[in-house]
Amino acid sequence: MRMVPTHHDGEGSCRGRYLRDVEITSRIRAGRGDFVLFAITPPRQSTPVERLPEIARATIERLDHLDLDGLVLYDIDDESSRNPVERPFPFSPTVDPSEYRAEHLQAWRTPAIVYRAVGKYQRDELRRWLTEQDPHRTLTVLVGAASSGTTPPVSLAEAQALRAELNPELLLGGVAVPERHSRRENEHRRLIAKQEAGCRFFVSQVVYDVNAAKNLVSDYRYECDSRGLAAVPIVFTVSVCGSMKTLEFLRWLGVDVPRWIENDLRHSTNPLAASLEQAQATAVELIDFCRRLGVPFGLNVESVSIRREEIEASVDLAARLTAYLRS
Amino acid sequence: MRMVPTHHDGEGSCRGRYLRDVEITSRIRAGRGDFVLFAITPPRQSTPVERLPEIARATIERLDHLDLDGLVLYDIDDESSRNPVERPFPFSPTVDPSEYRAEHLQAWRTPAIVYRAVGKYQRDELRRWLTEQDPHRTLTVLVGAASSGTTPPVSLAEAQALRAELNPELLLGGVAVPERHSRRENEHRRLIAKQEAGCRFFVSQVVYDVNAAKNLVSDYRYECDSRGLAAVPIVFTVSVCGSMKTLEFLRWLGVDVPRWIENDLRHSTNPLAASLEQAQATAVELIDFCRRLGVPFGLNVESVSIRREEIEASVDLAARLTAYLRS
Repeated sequence: MRMVPTHHDGEGSCRGRYLRDVEITSRIRAGRGDFVLFAITPPRQSTPVERLPEIARATIERLDHLDLDGLVLYDIDDESSRNPVERPFPFSPTVDPSEYRAEHLQAWRTPAIVYRAVGKYQRDELRRWLTEQDPHRTLTVLVGAASSGTTPPVSLAEAQALRAELNPELLLGGVAVPERHSRRENEHRRLIAKQEAGCRFFVSQVVYDVNAAKNLVSDYRYECDSRGLAAVPIVFTVSVCGSMKTLEFLRWLGVDVPRWIENDLRHSTNPLAASLEQAQATAVELIDFCRRLGVPFGLNVESVSIRREEIEASVDLAARLTAYLRS
Repeated sequence: MRMVPTHHDGEGSCRGRYLRDVEITSRIRAGRGDFVLFAITPPRQSTPVERLPEIARATIERLDHLDLDGLVLYDIDDESSRNPVERPFPFSPTVDPSEYRAEHLQAWRTPAIVYRAVGKYQRDELRRWLTEQDPHRTLTVLVGAASSGTTPPVSLAEAQALRAELNPELLLGGVAVPERHSRRENEHRRLIAKQEAGCRFFVSQVVYDVNAAKNLVSDYRYECDSRGLAAVPIVFTVSVCGSMKTLEFLRWLGVDVPRWIENDLRHSTNPLAASLEQAQATAVELIDFCRRLGVPFGLNVESVSIRREEIEASVDLAARLTAYLRS
C-alpha cells in the first residue's frame, strides 16, 4: 500500500488522511475519480545510459511537491503508418517505460500507469509483462496498434483478454478520443465496449476542444444509464503548448489545437502563459461538468515538449489543478 | 445625449459618473468596448395591437434594473431561402423594430441598435429610414439578404453606401459569424471589408463554440495589425438554451449548439441552469481573451425563446455579465 511520507504527515493529520483516501487504485476500483496524474515520456533510447539517473531524478524533484496520485508513463510507437503527413519530430524510439521506471523511478511514491503500445510486442513478452506487474503499484493502459497493412503479433482485444486471464487485479485503462467523437459520434459506445473488455478507467487524448470532450462525457454517461452500467473514471489529459514544434506535434497526433494558439505563438509576448490559462480553464470546465453529471473523472497533465519552460508550465498547471480539485 | 436618470444619481456620484462614461455611441466612436446589450425580437405582427404596450412595458420592467448600455432590436426576415431544412418554428413576420421602438419603447433610456434586414426594403424606404435616425439614440446593423435566386431591391453594399451618404454619423455595425470562420477561415477578412464599408462594430451570431470565436478574434486582430487598422469592438452574442424548440431553432440559424446541451435538455433536471453557467463561462473566457489581445468587445445577451423561464434566465445572464464586466 502507498505510504504517506513523513513530511506530509507533519503537515497535519487531516492532510495525511486525505492523502491515504485518494490512493488511486482503490479509488478506481470503487468507481471514484478526483485524482491528478502527470504524464511523461521516457528519454530516447539514444540518450547516454549514464544520463538516465539524473533525468529521472530531475523529474522526481520537479513533481515531488505536487502530491500527485500517480505518474503516467507513455510507450511510444512509431505511428507514421497512422498519418501520411511527415512527422514534425523525427521518430526516435524511447526507453521502455516499465524498465525506465524499474531502474530509475523507484523513488517515486505513488502508483504508475504504464502504457503498452500493444503492436510493439510479441505475445510472450506481453504475457510476461502482464504477469509480473504488482496491481497495487501499477496500472496499465493498453493501446491498439496504429492502422496499417501489417497485422501486429497481438491485437488489442487479445491483449485485453491476456490481462484478464493472467493478472485480473491489474487495473486496465483505455484511450478516449473526443475528436473521434466529433467526427463519428460513436466514441461513447467504443468506451463501453472497452469497459466490457475490462477497462476500469479511460485516459483522453489532449483536450483543447472542451465542447467535444463534454459531448463525449455526456453521451457516455447517458449510454451507461440506459444500459444500467456505472460510469468509470474518465481522465482528461491537458497540456500547455508553448512552441510551434509542440503545436505541430499535437496536430500531427490528431489534436485539434485552435488557431488562436498558433497566432499567440507567432505574435504574443507570452504564449505559454496564455496556453496555461486556457488549459486550466478547460480542466475546470470539465471538472465542474463531470461533477454536475456525476461522472467520475481524473486529470492528467501531459508534458508534450522537452523544453524546460514548457515542462515548468506543465508542473505549474498540475499544481493549479491539484489545488482546485482539493479546495 | 443620454441622461442619467435620477434614481441612479441617488446611488452616488461615482456610479453616476460611470454610467455617463459608458455611453455606447461615444465608446464605439472612440473604438472602445466594455458594454452590455440585450437583444429582443419584436412581437409577431399577428399579436393584437392592444397587447403591444403591455409586452413592451414588461420588457422594460425586466431589463430596467440591469444598467444595460443599449437594446438590440432584431429585424426578422424569412430566411427559408437560406436553409432548405424546414424551419422549426413557422415563419411569422414581426412588428417592424423601428416602429415598435418608436411607439412602445420610448421609456427605454439607452440607445437602441436597430437591425435592418436589407433585403426586405425598397430603396426609398431604406433611404427614408436611414435619413430619419438620430445618431445619438440609434445605431444600426445592416444585414444582407439571404442567398436566393431573386435579387433584392437594395444590396448590402448599396445600403452601406446609402448610410454613409445620407447619415454618416449613424453608427453602422455588421454581423460576425464564428462558425463561418471555422469552415472558410476568411471571416476576419470579411469583417475588415465591412469595416472599410463603414462598420464601426460587429455583432456575432450566438456563440457556443468558444474556440471558434477566439480564432476569429485572434485572426481579426492580427490582420488589423498587419494592415495598420485599429480593431473595432466585436460584440459577442450569448444566449441560454432551455428547450428543444430553442435548440432546434438555434441550429436552424446555423449555430453549432453542442450535443451535451441536447442531452441535458433530454435528461437533466435543470438544463436551463447548466446552459446559463455555460453561457457565462463562454462570455468570461471571451472577455479575458479580448482584454489580453487588446481587442475592444461588447456582450449581447439574446433571448431566443419566448418562454418565461428562458427569458428570466437571459436577464439573469445579463446581470451576471454586467457585474463581471464592471467589477
